[in-house]
Amino acid sequence: MLVSALVTSLAINSGLCVLFFVMYSVLRKQPTNYEVYMPRVLAEGNARRGSRFKLVRLIPSPGWVMRAWKLSEEELLSSSGLDTVVFMRTITFCLKVFTFAGIIGIFVLLPVNCTGTQLHEIDFVNFSNNSLDVFTISNVNNASKRLWIHFSAVYVLTIVICCLLYYEYRYISSKRIAFFLSSKPQPHQFTILVRSIPVSVGSSVSETVESFFKEYHPTTYLSNIVIRRTSKLHALINEAKKQYKRLVHLQTGPSQQKYKRLGFFGHKVDLVDHYEKKLEDIEQSVKLEQSEVSLAEDTQAAFVSFKSRYGAAIAFHLQQSINPTHWITEQAPEPNDVYWPFFSSSFIRRWVSKLVVIVACILLTILFLIPVVVVQGLTNLSQLEIWFPFLKSILTITFVSQVITGYLPSLILQLFLKIVPWIMELLSSIQGYISHSDIEKSACNKVLWFTIWNIFFATVFSGSVLYQLSIFLDLKNIPSKLAVAVPAQASFFIAYVVTSGWTSTATELFRLIPFIFSLVARCFAKREDEELEIPSIPYHRDIPRILFFGLLGITYFFLAPLILPFLLVYLCLAYIIFRNQFINVYTPKYETAGKFWPTVHNSMIFSLILMHAIAVGIFTVKKLSLASTLILPLPVLTLLFNEYCRKRFLPIFVAYSAEVLIKKDREDQNDAEMAEFFDKLATAYQDPALMPVHYSTNTGSLNSPLLSSSEV
Amino acid sequence: MLVSALVTSLAINSGLCVLFFVMYSVLRKQPTNYEVYMPRVLAEGNARRGSRFKLVRLIPSPGWVMRAWKLSEEELLSSSGLDTVVFMRTITFCLKVFTFAGIIGIFVLLPVNCTGTQLHEIDFVNFSNNSLDVFTISNVNNASKRLWIHFSAVYVLTIVICCLLYYEYRYISSKRIAFFLSSKPQPHQFTILVRSIPVSVGSSVSETVESFFKEYHPTTYLSNIVIRRTSKLHALINEAKKQYKRLVHLQTGPSQQKYKRLGFFGHKVDLVDHYEKKLEDIEQSVKLEQSEVSLAEDTQAAFVSFKSRYGAAIAFHLQQSINPTHWITEQAPEPNDVYWPFFSSSFIRRWVSKLVVIVACILLTILFLIPVVVVQGLTNLSQLEIWFPFLKSILTITFVSQVITGYLPSLILQLFLKIVPWIMELLSSIQGYISHSDIEKSACNKVLWFTIWNIFFATVFSGSVLYQLSIFLDLKNIPSKLAVAVPAQASFFIAYVVTSGWTSTATELFRLIPFIFSLVARCFAKREDEELEIPSIPYHRDIPRILFFGLLGITYFFLAPLILPFLLVYLCLAYIIFRNQFINVYTPKYETAGKFWPTVHNSMIFSLILMHAIAVGIFTVKKLSLASTLILPLPVLTLLFNEYCRKRFLPIFVAYSAEVLIKKDREDQNDAEMAEFFDKLATAYQDPALMPVHYSTNTGSLNSPLLSSSEV
Repeated sequence: MLVSALVTSLAINSGLCVLFFVMYSVLRKQPTNYEVYMPRVLAEGNARRGSRFKLVRLIPSPGWVMRAWKLSEEELLSSSGLDTVVFMRTITFCLKVFTFAGIIGIFVLLPVNCTGTQLHEIDFVNFSNNSLDVFTISNVNNASKRLWIHFSAVYVLTIVICCLLYYEYRYISSKRIAFFLSSKPQPHQFTILVRSIPVSVGSSVSETVESFFKEYHPTTYLSNIVIRRTSKLHALINEAKKQYKRLVHLQTGPSQQKYKRLGFFGHKVDLVDHYEKKLEDIEQSVKLEQSEVSLAEDTQAAFVSFKSRYGAAIAFHLQQSINPTHWITEQAPEPNDVYWPFFSSSFIRRWVSKLVVIVACILLTILFLIPVVVVQGLTNLSQLEIWFPFLKSILTITFVSQVITGYLPSLILQLFLKIVPWIMELLSSIQGYISHSDIEKSACNKVLWFTIWNIFFATVFSGSVLYQLSIFLDLKNIPSKLAVAVPAQASFFIAYVVTSGWTSTATELFRLIPFIFSLVARCFAKREDEELEIPSIPYHRDIPRILFFGLLGITYFFLAPLILPFLLVYLCLAYIIFRNQFINVYTPKYETAGKFWPTVHNSMIFSLILMHAIAVGIFTVKKLSLASTLILPLPVLTLLFNEYCRKRFLPIFVAYSAEVLIKKDREDQNDAEMAEFFDKLATAYQDPALMPVHYSTNTGSLNSPLLSSSEV
Repeated sequence: MLVSALVTSLAINSGLCVLFFVMYSVLRKQPTNYEVYMPRVLAEGNARRGSRFKLVRLIPSPGWVMRAWKLSEEELLSSSGLDTVVFMRTITFCLKVFTFAGIIGIFVLLPVNCTGTQLHEIDFVNFSNNSLDVFTISNVNNASKRLWIHFSAVYVLTIVICCLLYYEYRYISSKRIAFFLSSKPQPHQFTILVRSIPVSVGSSVSETVESFFKEYHPTTYLSNIVIRRTSKLHALINEAKKQYKRLVHLQTGPSQQKYKRLGFFGHKVDLVDHYEKKLEDIEQSVKLEQSEVSLAEDTQAAFVSFKSRYGAAIAFHLQQSINPTHWITEQAPEPNDVYWPFFSSSFIRRWVSKLVVIVACILLTILFLIPVVVVQGLTNLSQLEIWFPFLKSILTITFVSQVITGYLPSLILQLFLKIVPWIMELLSSIQGYISHSDIEKSACNKVLWFTIWNIFFATVFSGSVLYQLSIFLDLKNIPSKLAVAVPAQASFFIAYVVTSGWTSTATELFRLIPFIFSLVARCFAKREDEELEIPSIPYHRDIPRILFFGLLGITYFFLAPLILPFLLVYLCLAYIIFRNQFINVYTPKYETAGKFWPTVHNSMIFSLILMHAIAVGIFTVKKLSLASTLILPLPVLTLLFNEYCRKRFLPIFVAYSAEVLIKKDREDQNDAEMAEFFDKLATAYQDPALMPVHYSTNTGSLNSPLLSSSEV
């Protein structure tokens, strides 16, 4: 790729970003868009839907940037929880790393690379005709002493990142503990989930649980709620909700809609009656199903609550039964975080579903490569000309060719990647996790490794999956193969950062899809009194993206430091935009109290090890074998550092220590509200599908969140 | 190797075995050898040292074989503990597996191999001139349909082994729990070891522990004993013991020994006075050191005892402190199992020593290859003739060449291997384990992997370590390389089983080294009143050996089934001999209640996977690629089975469940002896080096185990 192509891509994307920013600054002030751009503010009742037209609304103002910038961490913590803080700290962590790396890269490494003559000398006269490869390490002469500068840079960056990782892990650990200590008593702190309960014939699950825990935890046991298989019920209730919505719509709508011919020649019927009857039917079957489900206790799982956090922790940590596959205990999620539909009971079935998910992930990886290969073909102009000879005349136009090489490839990739988080979430939900947070955490890991494999490695070693696998099976030659392939793709990834990174933040700000959605809804469906849904941030989409850019930055830092400024711009944009979205749009759906951080940490360690592997290969290829030998201690030390962090910090993210739990329990002893809390605790984990339903009585607003918005 | 060479080796070894058996049958009846052949019986006072000569003593009698054969598992359990039972069950497990494998191998696979013609047809006329390769899979014709028999055999054996493993694991788990439930209250059940205690300035470790556990475990905490660094003291006490022994020897010996010139021209001195004075000096310094050590509390570790097993388990399982690297808890070993010399305190120091041990193991592996390569050279006659041309005339004698190819190589290897368990135990003791049992368990693993690497892989891929490593780094080609190399060494390993296996059991029975030792001691040192030391079985020497033969049997089962009868003979010998030794010789030093079984299980699983890898390679080499593809599910299923066993059984071997602990605690509540037990518990973990010493007063027999035998 030439400098000019990069400049074109830069221009297009900067233009797009500015456009999105301006449009956002205007559109966000229109009351009709409040639901898209500030649903959170709306739900909190802080926004007035003034409908009077004002001129000031049409002038873009950057006030929101200032507000996002000024938001302090404490405010963020109190308004959006610790997960959000951790998410923002991931961005600031990358910012810190790449500010440091950028200074070294641009002011030290880049000049060294440019002044090399291995590929060709830099052409200052016709600057835009330079290949981007001139700025990479490939241009440094073989066996040059200057490579020691790169060598030192690798060492320095590794040390800096490890230090930062250590301090960050420590900071977030302390935040996590402080968060727990300052939290109010919450049901999930007192509760565990017990699975694989061995039920003897003639007694119910509830009785078995009761007798077991009264026997072995007599002083701390409080109550239990047996889990029922309610996936069928959930489907019925959703159906009922849909019918109810339709009914409400009909009743409030104009009267001509209320009658409709049945069949083509049939007589007109009152649709309200019709739907009401249908709703009643569904409700009947819901009630029937509920009573049926209440009798069947085939999940052999129960939420068991205790009188103290420490009691719950003891039951969670100790193996309960002689048979380790019975009475398996797990920490309970928050009540609203429980993923009800899937409670596969048996040990074996969970295994099978896990295996199925693994196979599905592999299949997805294989199938996904097809678009990636197409994209690879598109970046290669001559290939395109061979495939589509009739395009030859168009492709010779400089601008078109620049757009194609610089912009189009990563845009296509981007579009395909948009659906991956969604698929991975689906797969994780099949895997048998019991909470939304676990599903998202697992999906987050899946998406991350998918991205690394399917974007990084598939781009670097373009070819079939089998070819890629064969590279990784030959452990000895990985570094040298990486060293040849990775620098060759530097220009692709620079373009990728600009297109995918910049555009993704801009669309995140502009919320393109919800915006279009609301526009369409307003035009066609008139003003349906739709429930105001406040979205939550999909961590499994955004964390892997940031971490992947982190990986690109770290691995290309000493190969092609030109990538760093673009990364920094991306991170700055992300910093402002996500803060703005946390103020205006997203509200947390659950609270894991920072459990996403270990994923971030592991990804950074992996990036470092990958950088070291590439460095070993590069110095060998560049005929500086002493340097490649001297790099070898670095991955070992990094892994030792990681091992230390696993020992020092990871346990804090798995469970709370006895010290903390007992301290918290003692605080509660003097709390008068605890009796009330325990009363609530006994029913906190009731499956919502088993609660009574009343839709058919028109005024009934019981248990229907729909009504809350229709009454506004 | 030719059949005749194998027969020669067989003849020599059978002769040796018979010789050892006969000699043992005679020698064991001589009262002077009781200390060698039945120290345990002697210590239990069941053997009378009748010194009258009887003719019957000189006639070898096989009565001991009957006694060993008749010993039931319950008797073994009550007399030698669960570890011994597990050890014997390892042998019977192998016996079961190889009886089954032997039937298939000899009656099905061997005829198939013999009737092949790939290498050469079998020569029935001149049978002893057949190469042993005729009996291996290499002789089956390429792409022959008969290879499907081998294919089925691999499947059948895998299934049989997995079933047996499952039932064995289940049986031993239940035995372990039953053993615990029937055990008396023991100190280690109520105690945990706490390390990395953060001591604030101005308070002692003991106070810190006391206040911490009284704060967080007020109802269950009983007492604590701080651990002191006593390695220097141990050395001093050993010195004192030695001096004391010398003194006792002088006092009871003839009087001319009591005087000795000091220097060459010095005057005679009373040696008794001299040693007594020296002993007093040492004792003074011991007392000084003891008081010094009692003040210094620099290990930051303590044994903390609880009032119930459940209380100890809670403290062990839960992370105690906010900082996971402080207050690290471990299960305490039995008091007499504690390895006092090494209590490195800090987190970092234990890390460093672990790293050092790993490096030392690698070094040992590299250095050890030198004798192995020499041994490899010896097996190759023509190589030997090139090296030592002057031996040519001797080497052409058939008998000599047969001895050299059939017997010598593995004997040399064997001698080198003798020292490995000892070195590995030393390395494990440096690694920072706190008990002898942990050290032996770790050494057992080390010796096992060392044996597999340095005998199996080094023989198969003879060559430098780097060459071997390069094979394992190229994951893709491992099966094909194994397929070529492993069958080629079949005859070596058959000879190895006969020489190393059979001889090792015979020497085990005959106790060659202790016998020579006692002989020498009797001849030269006259009858020193040496303490009767009852040896304990070195599991880290014997378990790896049996498991390695298991690996050989499983991997060569379908390649060269001829190995199986020899293995069976070995196992039968081992079965009888070890039972005999447990009756007469060994007494357990500690009780891990079966914790060695997971090692056995893992080793078997590894052997299976190795067999599958070889099978994949063999069928590819034999041009039956469908079979090699159809083998692939087998390792996956085996690993899944292993994963299931890890979930189902392994937790039982790590810690006892709440159910069991509470049951046991409740039994104790009504026990009147518990008060007395708790009194003892408070001092059970007192370091023996810190107990008062009294050697210089001649009659003082306090705390000196030496005296117990001198008083007999």
